[in-house]
Amino acid sequence: MTKLIHNLVQNAAGRMVPAQINGQEAIPYQGLGNYRPTGRKAAPPIRSCVDYPQDGDKTVGTIKEALVNAGLRDGMTISSHHHLRNGDFVANAVFAAAAELGVKDLRWVPSASFPVHEPQIAHLESGVIHHIEGSMNGPLGDYCTRGKMRGMAVLRSHGGRYQAIQDGEVHVDIAVIAAPTADPFGNATGDRGPTACGLLGFALADSEYADHVIAVTDNLVPFPCIPWQIQGNNVDQVVVMDSIGDASKIVSGTTQVTKSPDRLLIAELTARFCDEAGIIQDGFSFQAGAGGTALSFALFLRDMMRERGIKARFVRGGSTQYLVDMLEEGLTEYILDGQTFDLEGVRSMRENPGHQNTSPFTSYNWHGKGNFASMLDAVVLGATEVDVNFNANVVTHSDGRLLHGIGGWQNCLASKCTILPIPSFRDRIPVLVDEVTTLCGPGELIDVIVTERGIAINPLRHDLLERLRGSSLPIRTIEEIKGEVEDICGGPAAKPELGEKVVAAIKWVDGTVIDCVRQVGD
Amino acid sequence: MTKLIHNLVQNAAGRMVPAQINGQEAIPYQGLGNYRPTGRKAAPPIRSCVDYPQDGDKTVGTIKEALVNAGLRDGMTISSHHHLRNGDFVANAVFAAAAELGVKDLRWVPSASFPVHEPQIAHLESGVIHHIEGSMNGPLGDYCTRGKMRGMAVLRSHGGRYQAIQDGEVHVDIAVIAAPTADPFGNATGDRGPTACGLLGFALADSEYADHVIAVTDNLVPFPCIPWQIQGNNVDQVVVMDSIGDASKIVSGTTQVTKSPDRLLIAELTARFCDEAGIIQDGFSFQAGAGGTALSFALFLRDMMRERGIKARFVRGGSTQYLVDMLEEGLTEYILDGQTFDLEGVRSMRENPGHQNTSPFTSYNWHGKGNFASMLDAVVLGATEVDVNFNANVVTHSDGRLLHGIGGWQNCLASKCTILPIPSFRDRIPVLVDEVTTLCGPGELIDVIVTERGIAINPLRHDLLERLRGSSLPIRTIEEIKGEVEDICGGPAAKPELGEKVVAAIKWVDGTVIDCVRQVGD
Repeated sequence: MTKLIHNLVQNAAGRMVPAQINGQEAIPYQGLGNYRPTGRKAAPPIRSCVDYPQDGDKTVGTIKEALVNAGLRDGMTISSHHHLRNGDFVANAVFAAAAELGVKDLRWVPSASFPVHEPQIAHLESGVIHHIEGSMNGPLGDYCTRGKMRGMAVLRSHGGRYQAIQDGEVHVDIAVIAAPTADPFGNATGDRGPTACGLLGFALADSEYADHVIAVTDNLVPFPCIPWQIQGNNVDQVVVMDSIGDASKIVSGTTQVTKSPDRLLIAELTARFCDEAGIIQDGFSFQAGAGGTALSFALFLRDMMRERGIKARFVRGGSTQYLVDMLEEGLTEYILDGQTFDLEGVRSMRENPGHQNTSPFTSYNWHGKGNFASMLDAVVLGATEVDVNFNANVVTHSDGRLLHGIGGWQNCLASKCTILPIPSFRDRIPVLVDEVTTLCGPGELIDVIVTERGIAINPLRHDLLERLRGSSLPIRTIEEIKGEVEDICGGPAAKPELGEKVVAAIKWVDGTVIDCVRQVGD
Repeated sequence: MTKLIHNLVQNAAGRMVPAQINGQEAIPYQGLGNYRPTGRKAAPPIRSCVDYPQDGDKTVGTIKEALVNAGLRDGMTISSHHHLRNGDFVANAVFAAAAELGVKDLRWVPSASFPVHEPQIAHLESGVIHHIEGSMNGPLGDYCTRGKMRGMAVLRSHGGRYQAIQDGEVHVDIAVIAAPTADPFGNATGDRGPTACGLLGFALADSEYADHVIAVTDNLVPFPCIPWQIQGNNVDQVVVMDSIGDASKIVSGTTQVTKSPDRLLIAELTARFCDEAGIIQDGFSFQAGAGGTALSFALFLRDMMRERGIKARFVRGGSTQYLVDMLEEGLTEYILDGQTFDLEGVRSMRENPGHQNTSPFTSYNWHGKGNFASMLDAVVLGATEVDVNFNANVVTHSDGRLLHGIGGWQNCLASKCTILPIPSFRDRIPVLVDEVTTLCGPGELIDVIVTERGIAINPLRHDLLERLRGSSLPIRTIEEIKGEVEDICGGPAAKPELGEKVVAAIKWVDGTVIDCVRQVGD
């Protein structure tokens, strides 16, 4: 008999999800738009200028000293942001200092973690860190999937993380903000300095709602640091480190367009679909990521726009040199940027008034007065799996391992036309499946799947089906494409072997639990 | 026997102040830095995107419709900002609509009111408005002083207003934000449009903390309105009016330097004092207002800086063409601007990246993690009266009438050197008095008084007295200057005849009550 290790309940998507997460009640997903929040936002403590230096100099010597001043103790929650990506030195320094101070059972709430953060495994083993809530790209995700973390991981979208902190679902005791440039008062920007990363929007909620905020910089400038993407008025202490990150790993010097013929075909089909669907017209908007296919899609789009003299009102980044080129060429009036993926993005954010710094608050927070994501005419996203009901997975691989974060993916599904350009199989494993291993996005929100074998329009989108009737594009049903792929791959994708233990909860944009991830191996 | 109409208590400044204000407990002033706030900030309701239009279009037809949608009812608090100054059409339109809707007993919390707002007297008379909390320049102040308002007015500094809203001391039900340019989502800016006023910082707290936020514009642009000084994510509804204001009364086309020989002398003495006190050096900072003397001071300073090749790190506005000239000439790296006083200020804010939009949150909020005001090397302010203990008054005239707001004045006293350049008498009434009619700023914070008859340094500033020893400047005691003035004017200033009724409470920057204003006449 299997030991009951979780109290699971079935949610509105038919998924069995934990009723409690790390001892707190969790609300199961209730279907699109059905969960209504109540109550008031989280409220940080009222401070007084009496307790802060009159000359505005909040610098202290070391991270360790800052953590002591902040009152670090067992069981606290520490947050960090991931704009420095795989080049981040700060989060590791924070937990090294916490370990030296002998504290235990910390909850780490990064906006995302990367392979560079592997040293935290030792702190999870030693008890310094209890568990992680935040995307885990790579080794930490693997560690989590193997059931080794004491607590349950919680994965949230960028907007969901803002929502959780805003709503008080996640109370951050100490936020540590890696700041490429800062002044002694704590005003900080990511758009300049030796470790420039562009913007700092993922740290906004932390700066606004944490009880205590520490900015860490390697480029201290005299007050005022302008622009102030993070406001010093929200910062308690400023620490200067020799280097906050490895610049070469923060941004890739160039983000590359795909060279794969299949991916190029997918990108072209996606652009042509947008065209035939009537999306590409003056004043339109779109968002595409920094992957090879998405970049290639943007280039096809750009060529169409150039040819026809069409100008976008705005494009949403992750910015890259390609979006920057479009802005500087006048093909779009604005880039509304959530993160900069390359050095051209950083430069443009610093130089172009039309390259606008945004945040999960402006763009993605579901518990707000609207957000930007639903205004997009088209958004182009990826997925690890898509099922016949258009449900999609972005966090686990076909073997069940949790190796990716959600990013803004769930939030972007709110767009007017959500398109997933994906290969129909990877490593001879079909990407189109009967049921996704992990449900991250409900099929009702995913409008179009574009593969190298054809384009499937969600049957719910009568308007799109109608519009594309008689198109020369290879419009097919998802079942047809799936069948063809299974013939090639020798059958459907094998279901992964999953254990009983729930290692991670997947939150929907409204804070409810849409699915969970089970232990694999060990 | 006088009827006891207020329960008064003596505060730490020796002033008798009301223990309750409009039925709420009030905390008497406890001395500089002695009051410590507790608890957490105000928390607005959690909203959901489900309840806002997916296409981001929050426009509604009229202010009246917006007020109905916002659930306007008797006794609510409505806030507004004063960046449109004496040209504002919006606040009048709001209360006209409220009157039409038949609601009563509203509390109006403007950041300031002007003569243009005189129509609210009719609404005070009819019962639509119960009372006003906010600066009252002109007729409303006069109305209040005559004891005609049903509730007690509350005057707060710009920082104090932010503090009060942030701390939940003032709960705003509906904030109405006049927006010179806005998009349908509610993103708004003051730096462009037919009624451009520069920035919108005085509305920041309202946008962040009110239960419901209405933006009113006469210049609707397609999403995104960039810059977004007010974030659409905080806005519930957008109303388009034909015109939100009279552009000619919003900003004065030119703000004029004084031509009075006495005022010019005062301005020059102030600049020379700053020089001899060692304030004017590379990287310094200062703030001066837009009055004739302050502008003239800035010009003397500018000339000194030019001559010696000295560059300021930042100057704080109220910006004018004079500060803009300094910025564009390279005499300062930044203008940190709280409001734009003329059209050049508006243009510069739009064009110069070094002309930075600030707010009472960044600059003045005492219940924050520090603020900008205390970092200023020198600040030059006005006063209606100063007493021998350097206490100063900025709200009442010598006849006791409440005709001015506090503005940022109290907040600015936190600077490293606070200088009041003032005429020693006005209309043959001495400005230097034994005891100020209304205490707005404690003498401990006022370092220097500069009059046409000499400069008085606060005896508490041993360092300044030491530094100026042997100076060729006319350094005198405040008593000496006062005595000389009284000889000229035929005696000390007469005490105004004040009634029993407290018509207004004067808050200190920490929310405590530093003084109150008594009824005059009627």
